[in-house]
Formats: sequence, C-alpha cells, structure tokens
Amino acid sequence: METPPELSLETTEKPRRRGREERQRAGSSAPVYRPQPKRPFPAVNAVSEDQLEAIHNASMQILEEMGIEVLHDEARAILKAAGADVAPDTNRVRFDRGLVESKLGLAPRSVTLHARNPNRNLTIGGDHLAFCSVASAPNVADRDGGRRPGNRRDFQNLIRLGQTLDTVHLWGGYPVEPADIHASVRHLDALYDLLTLSDKPVHAYSLGRERNLDAFELVRIARGIDRETLDREVSLFTIINSNSPLRLDIPMMEGVIQMARHNQLTVLTPFTLAGAMAPVTIAGAVAQQNAEALAGLVLSQSVRPGAPFAYGGFTSNVDMKTGAPAFGTPEQMKAALVGGQLARRYGLPYRSSNTNAANTIDAQAAYESVFSLWGAVMGGVNLLMHGAGWMEGGLHASFEKMVIDADLLDMITNFLMPFQVNDDELALDAIREVGPGGHFFGCAHTQARYRTAFFAPMISDWRNYETWQEAGSPTAYDRANRLYKDRLEAYQEPPMDPAIREELAAFVAKRKEEGGAPTDF
Amino acid sequence: METPPELSLETTEKPRRRGREERQRAGSSAPVYRPQPKRPFPAVNAVSEDQLEAIHNASMQILEEMGIEVLHDEARAILKAAGADVAPDTNRVRFDRGLVESKLGLAPRSVTLHARNPNRNLTIGGDHLAFCSVASAPNVADRDGGRRPGNRRDFQNLIRLGQTLDTVHLWGGYPVEPADIHASVRHLDALYDLLTLSDKPVHAYSLGRERNLDAFELVRIARGIDRETLDREVSLFTIINSNSPLRLDIPMMEGVIQMARHNQLTVLTPFTLAGAMAPVTIAGAVAQQNAEALAGLVLSQSVRPGAPFAYGGFTSNVDMKTGAPAFGTPEQMKAALVGGQLARRYGLPYRSSNTNAANTIDAQAAYESVFSLWGAVMGGVNLLMHGAGWMEGGLHASFEKMVIDADLLDMITNFLMPFQVNDDELALDAIREVGPGGHFFGCAHTQARYRTAFFAPMISDWRNYETWQEAGSPTAYDRANRLYKDRLEAYQEPPMDPAIREELAAFVAKRKEEGGAPTDF
Repeated sequence: METPPELSLETTEKPRRRGREERQRAGSSAPVYRPQPKRPFPAVNAVSEDQLEAIHNASMQILEEMGIEVLHDEARAILKAAGADVAPDTNRVRFDRGLVESKLGLAPRSVTLHARNPNRNLTIGGDHLAFCSVASAPNVADRDGGRRPGNRRDFQNLIRLGQTLDTVHLWGGYPVEPADIHASVRHLDALYDLLTLSDKPVHAYSLGRERNLDAFELVRIARGIDRETLDREVSLFTIINSNSPLRLDIPMMEGVIQMARHNQLTVLTPFTLAGAMAPVTIAGAVAQQNAEALAGLVLSQSVRPGAPFAYGGFTSNVDMKTGAPAFGTPEQMKAALVGGQLARRYGLPYRSSNTNAANTIDAQAAYESVFSLWGAVMGGVNLLMHGAGWMEGGLHASFEKMVIDADLLDMITNFLMPFQVNDDELALDAIREVGPGGHFFGCAHTQARYRTAFFAPMISDWRNYETWQEAGSPTAYDRANRLYKDRLEAYQEPPMDPAIREELAAFVAKRKEEGGAPTDF
Repeated sequence: METPPELSLETTEKPRRRGREERQRAGSSAPVYRPQPKRPFPAVNAVSEDQLEAIHNASMQILEEMGIEVLHDEARAILKAAGADVAPDTNRVRFDRGLVESKLGLAPRSVTLHARNPNRNLTIGGDHLAFCSVASAPNVADRDGGRRPGNRRDFQNLIRLGQTLDTVHLWGGYPVEPADIHASVRHLDALYDLLTLSDKPVHAYSLGRERNLDAFELVRIARGIDRETLDREVSLFTIINSNSPLRLDIPMMEGVIQMARHNQLTVLTPFTLAGAMAPVTIAGAVAQQNAEALAGLVLSQSVRPGAPFAYGGFTSNVDMKTGAPAFGTPEQMKAALVGGQLARRYGLPYRSSNTNAANTIDAQAAYESVFSLWGAVMGGVNLLMHGAGWMEGGLHASFEKMVIDADLLDMITNFLMPFQVNDDELALDAIREVGPGGHFFGCAHTQARYRTAFFAPMISDWRNYETWQEAGSPTAYDRANRLYKDRLEAYQEPPMDPAIREELAAFVAKRKEEGGAPTDF
C-alpha cells in the first residue's frame, strides 16, 4: 500500500519537539510524526548477577520438577516433539533446562511492528519504548456519562481520542470491550474500527484459531500487502496471559502457535499477582512468572525458530486484607525492575504496564500510575501496555485518564531525550550578558528559544492561585474532561485508500455471512 | 542528655516494616524507629563523563571569568585571603579553578545529623536518604479552613502532624511561616516549638548572625550537650540559596560563615529556574547552579576546612508563557540526575526536592510530585527537601498533602529495600504445594507472611468500585483530610526532660527580653 500523498508531504517536515500544544489549540489533527522514545541510560538492575541466576535457576527447577499444565493437545505434541517430558494421560509438561536453553537467542532482540501508515511503524525492543493504549477494560467512564459497560460507541470514541494523541503509539487490544457486538463477530467489527479510525499498529486477541486468522487477513488488507510480505513483516501482536499458577489454556496456546507460524509478535505475560496466583514473596512470584514466560517461549520457538516473542512482566500484589489487586505498589516497581533484568538476560523485548487501582481521577490514580511508570521505564520497558486510560485495576477505561496519561507519557518522552551539552546549551555568553542579579527573560539566548525550550503540558495548570481560583478552581480531572471532548471534536479520520476500505468491509461482511468465529472458547 | 526511659525501651524492639498502619488505627504514637532508607542500586547518570566534565569546565569558566557578586564584606575578605580575585571597589569575586580544586575533598562525604532524640539521628550522604518536611511556605491550607496566611497555630499543627509521620525524618525549615510572631523573635519561638513538639533534627534559617547563634544555643540545650560536643556533632543544618544569577547576599554568606565556624551543615542550593534566573537551556542552568554552589563551597571550606557542606540542586524551569515556576517537569528530572552526578563528582551529599506547582490536591499535584521524586531518588538524593506537604510551587503548605506525601515517601522507602532472593523468598515449596491452577491465599507460606508481606498504604483506596461508591466515592483528598485530623488527635508530645524544657524556655525569654534579633536583614 502506498502512503496517501498528504501524509507523505507531512513527513518531509522535521519532527517538531514541542509543537503539540499549538496543534491542539488549532484543533488540527495534521499528523506530525515524532521520533519514538529511546532510553538514553542503562536500565536499573534491582538484583545482582548472582541473585538473577538464583531466580533463573528457581524457574528452571519449576519447569523441570513441577512443569506446566498445557491444556492444548497440539501444543503438547509440539512440545513433546521438541523434547519436553509430557506425562502420559495428563496435561503436565516438564521442560528440561537444556530444552529451555536451546530456545534462547532465537527470537529477535528487536522487531519492527508495522502499521498501515508506515510513519507509525514501531521498533519493539532494544532501547526503544512503545506506549500502548489501555486495553481490555470491561467498562468505560467519563465524568459526564459515569461508569458504564463497554460498548461500540465508546470503543470507537476511545480509538478516535487515542488516534489524536501522539504518545499513544499503538493499540494493546480493545481500549474497552465493545460488548454490544456479538462475540462471534466482535473481532471483525472491532479490528475494522481499529484499522479504519486509526492508522497505528494493532493487537489481536488470541481467542481461537479463526480469530487469529481473521486478524492476519484484516491487517494484511489494511496494509495492502500480500501474504509473503506479511510473513516477513511483523504487523500484529498478541498478549498471551498464562492462567497462573502454572497453566496455559487452549486459546492462549493456539495463539502462540498461530502467531509463531505467521511470524507475528507474541507477548507472553504471566498473570502473577503475588499472594493470589503467585507466592506472597516477590522473588517467588517473579520466579514463577519467569517459568511461565519461558514455557511459552519454548512453544513459540519450537513452532518456528526466530518467531518474534516478547517477555511480559505483570507481577504486582493483592491487598491481603481484601484480595483486591493492588497496582503501582513498591512491590510492582521492584518486580518490574527484575522482570526487565530477566528479559535482558534472555535477549527479549520487555513488556510492562502503566497501572493503578483508583476508582476515580484523583491523586491516587496519578501517583500509582507514575510509580508503575517509574518501575517500567527504569526497568527497561520496550512495550508499555495500558499506557493511557487504564483505571480501577483494569476494570474501566477512562476518557479523561487517557488524556492525562498521554501527558505523563509525553513527560517521560521528554525526560528520556538525551541531555544536550554543547556551547549553545551551556550558554556562557548568555550568563555573561545577563550578569549577577540580572534576568534571563529578555536576553537573546532566551528569546531565540523560549517558544520550544520546555515541555508544554496539556493538563498541568501553572496559573497562580488567584487566577486559578477566579477560573473556578479547576482540577486536572476538570481540564482532562474538557480537553478530551475538544480533541474528539477535532478528530479527523486518517486517510485510507478507498479500495482498501472496501476490501476490508467486504472481508468483514463475508466472514459475518459465514457466521464469524466459534464462541465456545 | 539521656534518652527518656520509655524511648529506650521502645528501641529494643526490632524495627517493624509494615506495622505503621496498625499503629495508626490504634491511634498510638508510640515511636517505632525504622531504619533510614538506603539506595540499593547505583544512581542513574544522565550524562557521560565527558559531558559532565564539559559542565564542570563551564562552571569553572563562569567562576574564573565572570565571577560571583558577594555582598558580604567579611566573606569577600575571607575569599581574598584564600586566593580569590576580589576586584577593588566592587563586590565581584573571581575564583581560579585551582582555588576551587583545592577546596574539593575536604568536606565529609557523609555526616551524622543529630536529633535531640538520638534514635532520630540521620546520616546525610553516601547511599542514605533523609526526607524533610515542607519548608518555608508563606501560606497554609487544608480543605476545611481553605488557604490562609501562615500563623503559629498551623505551624505547630504541621509540626505535630509531621512528628507522627515516620517518613518525615527531619524539618527542613518552618513548614509554614508563623507570620503572626514578630520577626525579631520568630526564630526563638519557632525553634522552641520545633524542638519541643518534635524530637526530629531541625534546620535554622540564616537570616543574620544572631539567629544563627541563637539556633546553635537552642539546639545545644535541647540535646543537653556542651559547646565542645556541638562543635564535634552536627546538630543543625541551614539552606543557603544564592540570589541567582551569580549573587550571594549578606545573610546567606553570614550563614555559611557561622555554620562552618560551628561545624554545622550548610546546604547550598542555587535558585536556578531556567528561563528566569538561569539560562533557558538546562545544561546552562546546571552549569550556573554548579558555579554558584562551588562558590559557596570555597567560602565554607576557607572558613573551616572539613566543615560539612551539601550540594543543592533546585534547577527547574519557568512556564515561558507566564513566567510562573514549573515543577515536576521533565527538565527538572533531568537537572536532578545531572545535579546528582556533579555532587558525586565532588564527593558531597546531594540535596534535591519533592515539588509540584498544583493549586489543589488533584492528579497534577500527585504526578508532578512523583516525577520530581523519580528524578531526585534515581539521581542519588541524600537530603530530600519539601518531602511532605509542599504545594503550589512552595506558596502553601498543605495538611492533606503532608499525609499523602508521607505515603509516597513510604512507598519509596519500600521500593528501595533490597530485593531479597533466598529459598524462603523463592518459595518453591509453596509453588509445588499450590500447583497448576491453584490459589496461594490458603497455603502455609502465604499464611505465615500475609500480614506484613506488602506495603500497606494510608491513602490508596483499593476497595472495589461498588463498595467505594457506597462509601460516598471518597477521593485521596477526602481520605487525607480525615486522616490528618485523626493523626493530629492522636498526637502525643515526645518526652523531654523538664529541666531541658525549662532551660529552653528561659533562653527564649532572655533573648526576647534582649529584643531578639535585628529585622533589617
């Protein structure tokens, strides 16, 4: 597929660093493609090399002695053929550490994830960071409409809003479940919406082979490529959650197999909440996470050596008083650092998350989010799930939070820009010109730079107290509420070749006629 | 001074990690002394060694070529005697780089800051972190009373509240200015309050020699020590702000001289807001910060080689649209990392801050605070100013924010606890016992640990949405409002030998009779 000419023109512009706010004010959604953030300093190691090996060895012991329950017949057969020990008449698969070691180093350290708009292509891995939207929330909320079950209208509006936000790089799934679409055809309509309302890379759920295959076809059509190109170019990713502890279910294993066969990206993320689905101790929870992730890696690399595969860490803890999941905790931050160390040990891209357990857009929502971002970013995250819009431990997606999070991600993007040290930045002439007791506002060095010198937030209100009070004492929640509506109003659908749109619609119609996909997953 | 017996008894208890919440519920203020947090991983370097040297060299060029305006006659004389170039008939002092280099390595890398209760002593430097209360706000706020000018009643209540919070380790100044006490005697009443209502280490403002000397005497009496001991044991610190750009005023220089003479801790923090008092480029702002801090170091070490001295970084930026200071920005985070690198280069303890520019307790207040904490903590902060209660760019202290921040600092304290990896923590037996598809709630490993396994927050509300809604949908602000009042109610004054209290009161009375201190500073 060729890029529509208006987009090609835009990309001859140099990426502007600070222009976003101006564009917002103008209400324009003319795309400006900013470079993907890269971590300029090494990730932080929370444990020593010896401790890391102890965690690795504990995982090996889990895989060798206890094994993993694999509910999928073909997956067990593949693993058996690869050398795993599959106990007769049970689902239990034990993995020799030699088998595991033999599958390390095959998957790429870094892959290009292709979007239908090539300017939106992303590098997943290395020092790069890619920020996903919120995904898979069953409910949706904004202040005006309150909290309500997921539906296609809100689903589409969240896609529109995310499309307008530069720091939402890709879709990590459905931002909210469009539950009013029948489950047999939901994936068809939902992917059609994602691929037409947005031009950013997409995720597909692994809920049975038919859905995986439909997703490959929809993404292939949207990109205007043939099957050979799709097989060469990663154009889709899936999140595979293990059923912790130590279980991998049928649709998840089918997803690993299909994604590997088609050379698409699997992100295996064990669902290891310490104290519930994993040990109450963080080292134990991480060891279990690691065992489950490596079991998935062995399957993936047994299906197709070199298939793209990322290491997912989601270890947090539950509130032991109530059993409720807790997020943005010190335990999650520590687990995020160690998860990153393990991913780097295995040479795999690393997935972590922007999470919180708050029910409303208050200080808690913000500090839990930033703490989880702190752990993820300093831990070396490559693929940040739930980057924008996640609330309530994932139980609702929020329009306002999506805008606030986009600002947090923009702050991180600016924080990660390499620190510049040169004569121009050191500004000795300006310091000399201004002199003791002077002021830098008026000097030439400032005048030449002030418009773009600093990060300009969407949300933060820096007016003085009196002016702010006269304006009605708005909170960040108030500002985000106004802003998300302004942005939805200014949203423009990204251009798409009409022939491609027709082909997508025709494929959806045909598959609907065929009855969609089975719903007995 | 001997520790009162009830305190000595308490300290035979092993520090409990998670017991705080239980104590809060019990309404008890029985002190439990938790170990001071230590950074378990290296601080993050934002610039290369070469870049760091370029910044250092730019600072040297500033000091050599442009010099610093030093308004204090004795300071200029001391600097001249030390070898600085003092231009005749001006206040301009130029520092040869050889002079600067000769003063490096004399001040200790780490000092013990003594409290009147020795269990509250703190290490300032090395890998240790110490968290100060908010300081120097002209206004105070809580939701019930709104925002109001500083006064002694709120000042005392903030001290009481901070005394009950484990993670408020020391006082970085007056949490709010008790402006209803006459300026000539304010330091006497305020330090009396700090030293009697709390038993944590204190700060004294450098606003003229008399106030410095009064502070030494009050701290000496409160600790029950003689002058020789005070001269050996650091018992007080002061923040010295340069009048950026490139100016050091009379009370500040007097403070450096007095603190050095008496072997007390000076923290020199240039007030370098990029775009206003420093170049609009962060490298330039940091180079200027560094020059000003080193000028203070030269004075301090010329007065008394080895006098305790900490390197302060406060570089953030202004909002170029309005000139308003901005905090918790990406620019501040980067400057915090580089400031830490410079402090380590010079072997000095490093001061940074917990800051935000929000007018109310909303998401902005929280995310700006955590971003500033991220920069400070990963940058290797040793002395965190404004740790709890700072709002509105320092223009008001907030009761609710003090409680929220104390929780943030507690999360950081737990995040920084070394990651434990051993058989017990790896929990293989528990994983084996629970097995595939099981649940860890009931297993013995969990049962033995669940009460203290995880950080238990004061503020975060992890109830499910429905329960939370039935409870009236409280925000973090609501919870902090209730909690701070509960804590104030439960506050108990820390024990003090009556003879010491009398001596303190008598000193205050005598100095008031003498008219206090001049107010023409």
